Amino acid sequence: MRRFVSEGAKSLSLVSRPFLHRFEELLHLRFLSSTSVLDCPLSSSPSSSPMDPTPLTVDTINPKVLKCEYAVRGEVVTIAQRLQQELKDKPGSHPFDEILYCNIGNPQSLGQQPITFFREVLALCDHPSLLDKSETSGLFSADSIDRAWQILDQIPGRATGAYSHSQGVKGLRDAIASGIEARDGYPADPDDIFLTDGASPAVHMMMQLLTRSESDGILCPIPQYPLYSASIALHGGTLVPYYLDEANGWGLEVSELKKQLDAAKSKGVSVRALVVINPGNPTGQVLSEENQRQIVEFCKKEGLVLLADEVYQENIYAPEKQFHSFKKVARSMGYGEEDISLVSFQSVSKGYYGECGKRGGYMEVTGFAANIREQIYKVASVNLCSNISGQILASLVMNPPKANESYESYYAERDGILSSLARRAKILEDAFNSLEGVSCNKAEGAMYLFPRIRLPEKAIKAAEAANTVPDAFYCKHLLNATGVVVVPGSGFGQVPGTWHFRCTILPQEDKIPAVASRLTEFHKGFMDEFRD
Amino acid sequence: MRRFVSEGAKSLSLVSRPFLHRFEELLHLRFLSSTSVLDCPLSSSPSSSPMDPTPLTVDTINPKVLKCEYAVRGEVVTIAQRLQQELKDKPGSHPFDEILYCNIGNPQSLGQQPITFFREVLALCDHPSLLDKSETSGLFSADSIDRAWQILDQIPGRATGAYSHSQGVKGLRDAIASGIEARDGYPADPDDIFLTDGASPAVHMMMQLLTRSESDGILCPIPQYPLYSASIALHGGTLVPYYLDEANGWGLEVSELKKQLDAAKSKGVSVRALVVINPGNPTGQVLSEENQRQIVEFCKKEGLVLLADEVYQENIYAPEKQFHSFKKVARSMGYGEEDISLVSFQSVSKGYYGECGKRGGYMEVTGFAANIREQIYKVASVNLCSNISGQILASLVMNPPKANESYESYYAERDGILSSLARRAKILEDAFNSLEGVSCNKAEGAMYLFPRIRLPEKAIKAAEAANTVPDAFYCKHLLNATGVVVVPGSGFGQVPGTWHFRCTILPQEDKIPAVASRLTEFHKGFMDEFRD
Repeated sequence: MRRFVSEGAKSLSLVSRPFLHRFEELLHLRFLSSTSVLDCPLSSSPSSSPMDPTPLTVDTINPKVLKCEYAVRGEVVTIAQRLQQELKDKPGSHPFDEILYCNIGNPQSLGQQPITFFREVLALCDHPSLLDKSETSGLFSADSIDRAWQILDQIPGRATGAYSHSQGVKGLRDAIASGIEARDGYPADPDDIFLTDGASPAVHMMMQLLTRSESDGILCPIPQYPLYSASIALHGGTLVPYYLDEANGWGLEVSELKKQLDAAKSKGVSVRALVVINPGNPTGQVLSEENQRQIVEFCKKEGLVLLADEVYQENIYAPEKQFHSFKKVARSMGYGEEDISLVSFQSVSKGYYGECGKRGGYMEVTGFAANIREQIYKVASVNLCSNISGQILASLVMNPPKANESYESYYAERDGILSSLARRAKILEDAFNSLEGVSCNKAEGAMYLFPRIRLPEKAIKAAEAANTVPDAFYCKHLLNATGVVVVPGSGFGQVPGTWHFRCTILPQEDKIPAVASRLTEFHKGFMDEFRD
Repeated sequence: MRRFVSEGAKSLSLVSRPFLHRFEELLHLRFLSSTSVLDCPLSSSPSSSPMDPTPLTVDTINPKVLKCEYAVRGEVVTIAQRLQQELKDKPGSHPFDEILYCNIGNPQSLGQQPITFFREVLALCDHPSLLDKSETSGLFSADSIDRAWQILDQIPGRATGAYSHSQGVKGLRDAIASGIEARDGYPADPDDIFLTDGASPAVHMMMQLLTRSESDGILCPIPQYPLYSASIALHGGTLVPYYLDEANGWGLEVSELKKQLDAAKSKGVSVRALVVINPGNPTGQVLSEENQRQIVEFCKKEGLVLLADEVYQENIYAPEKQFHSFKKVARSMGYGEEDISLVSFQSVSKGYYGECGKRGGYMEVTGFAANIREQIYKVASVNLCSNISGQILASLVMNPPKANESYESYYAERDGILSSLARRAKILEDAFNSLEGVSCNKAEGAMYLFPRIRLPEKAIKAAEAANTVPDAFYCKHLLNATGVVVVPGSGFGQVPGTWHFRCTILPQEDKIPAVASRLTEFHKGFMDEFRD
């Protein structure tokens, strides 16, 4: 039986009832069992050598925190924030009037307007007493009022200020499951949905669940969205990289997955899961259904959990391409719950809605044993629930207006944004491809371009002299000359010796020509300065 | 130099430039450095014995997840959810008409109405185009419109749908810092504020930062709010318990802290921090300023980070008691940034507002070295930002209306809720104290009572026979007889051999007499059945 760290408990624990000893762990010790000091590596002569206090320094914090990196809000962004302050304090102090944040998929920060219907519903749910007032019908569309009533009726006591079920409001999960069914043509279970504050906490939950130690590995694409590398580092696991093939439109080859899996295994790493980002971030490719079937088959054969980042499912710009969820693909192959463990991540931050600040999202968890699902539920419970506005918005994006009052204006807003994004992607792609030493794959989907830059030797030497990674050197020069913020490819991973950067396609369309010409002008100057 | 797991990378890494080798970690390997398989305990003959796939079972998930417990949404609540469904499907199937969730501090789920001013501002910020319409002035108070404008002006581009700065919108942090200054009479720095989705993620961030391994300990009160034990378990640390003194109104004795600290040290545990929950959860005590000074002195002397859970700072019911923030107390002792590391947690879920579903909160972080602060910022960045509605609400609760249109109605709503809570606490406390074998300390603050029940031997034996913890046995019987959901003391920790439960004071006031009489009637029957 475990002893107990507490001296107080020992002296107070003079309970004679014999069963108490048997029950001790179940009872007051239950919640301490994970954390009893007796699980610790004890000092060799504990009573004679008490620990000195450990001073709090950067060397004594959790090393996993130190190791974690997140380039999307890294050094280049910090410089940009400083420049922005300088522009505010002293207009005209830089050769540009504004900082253009192309570092992050944050559409509304660059002027994209929210979808009216969604915001109407959110406002009504935030202040339900509006629904009792006659003036409201003059300010809100009739079907936003209907939808708000529907949603409020699904929330016990219509209390949008109450914690919900730990997975999210049941009625909202029902709506999301219906939306998934309509999208895929296969059943979806509301009990499989876990609503979260954006997709990031959902990714963390899965990494936490699957990672026991650094001997557990997660297959991740390179380049990848650095949430994955950061989350794996924070949870103490091992990132097992697989390379996307830039020469073939950032294609995903199953032979590459197999090679990297075997290499990791041979080094003693137990690979638990495969991350696939489709449409790709930062790469923008959209997988073909055939390719997805190969990936599903690979996960099934190798016993890997498939972690499908599908947050860009609405962002498809190539007319010949279509989004297929991995769950739909798996089900179309006849694979059910017993065959493959599959998690799909979705977010309200992306798509045509781009509601990043609302922090809504969900994961759909299928093919996990009931006792593992209970553990996921428990971890979700510790944080109680995700924010209700985000939950409502997730139900709206998965169930947008159908044929009724808001239908036309909703579709006009939606299609206006998506077609504009497609045009912006094309203009920027063409601009990049016209630059000396730059090549850029098409953005078939998502919100980014990831051009490759062949940097002159002289630029690389100058970067070395400045103790800076060459692609970061390029991005800092770009920022200082143009105010445009992009993220160095080294933050996402890239084939050694190649250099890239990620640039969103999100500046408003009327600004895109200016952005393209600023980038072009800068690049020419940079090459003139550093050409070998 | 590190090797690289990727076979692909090796074959592609044929870059002749010598500096590349020096730079390799900085470059594409930077984000992999934490996770390179080369940090792992490799199998002894890697190439000859590749790993078998690890099947995904509950035995192969992260054991820290398995060990984590969170009683507030534990077994009793699961039973309650089932009963609620049964009542819905078959009214009259139980001896009560409704389930009364007294397990969790979730005021609006039990009918508490939101503060009108707060919701007006939220609705306007959710749908800013309302501000351009003349009808709006008929639906919203003039100063909610003013406040919404003020807030929108602080958000770049008025984009409430954009990700904010990772610590939260700067202007909202300014407002919060002003509110803290007004509360404490000491300066507060907006750069010390990290806005979070409720207080829970802030607690997790600090536990993650401070915990390197199970040799790192965190001093926590017993009884405690189980977020702390859950978070420590999830981050792999050790909970070092200190006991609150029930016989002295759940008093916190510094001699007890010292005793437990020394005991932990002698077992090889490096204690990093002290958690204090004031006002107490589940215990409801409000610390005296003198006691707080002793605690500050203790942390300073022992080099401990003081983690101050101050989410119930507005919930004070004892006229002779007052809330003092630990920062104010430390500053009043002349201790500044250099003297003590202090984190204060605040939430929009508690107070008189009870906006649990909005998931707003913040931590104020003082007395940390700049390079540690950078690490906290980095971890916050990985999740981008907390939800903007929650951020706005946090700024509102720290800066409620002053003398203007909404002032009177706001204070009427606020004081109505707080005085009603005080009356409810008293009625329930008296009811508990009138029961055979039950004693209950006063709720000086917070939202809970934590009565002690002296269970008869016969009840304890019956619990044993049912393989149930005795206090859970009592709580399940209570639920089945009355529909009232409370949480067994064993979920919070208690002196061995003592039994308690936590009951919120949150049912609406008109229901409190019925709740008290249902509890009383049940208890009499229970004692009659099990009296020795």
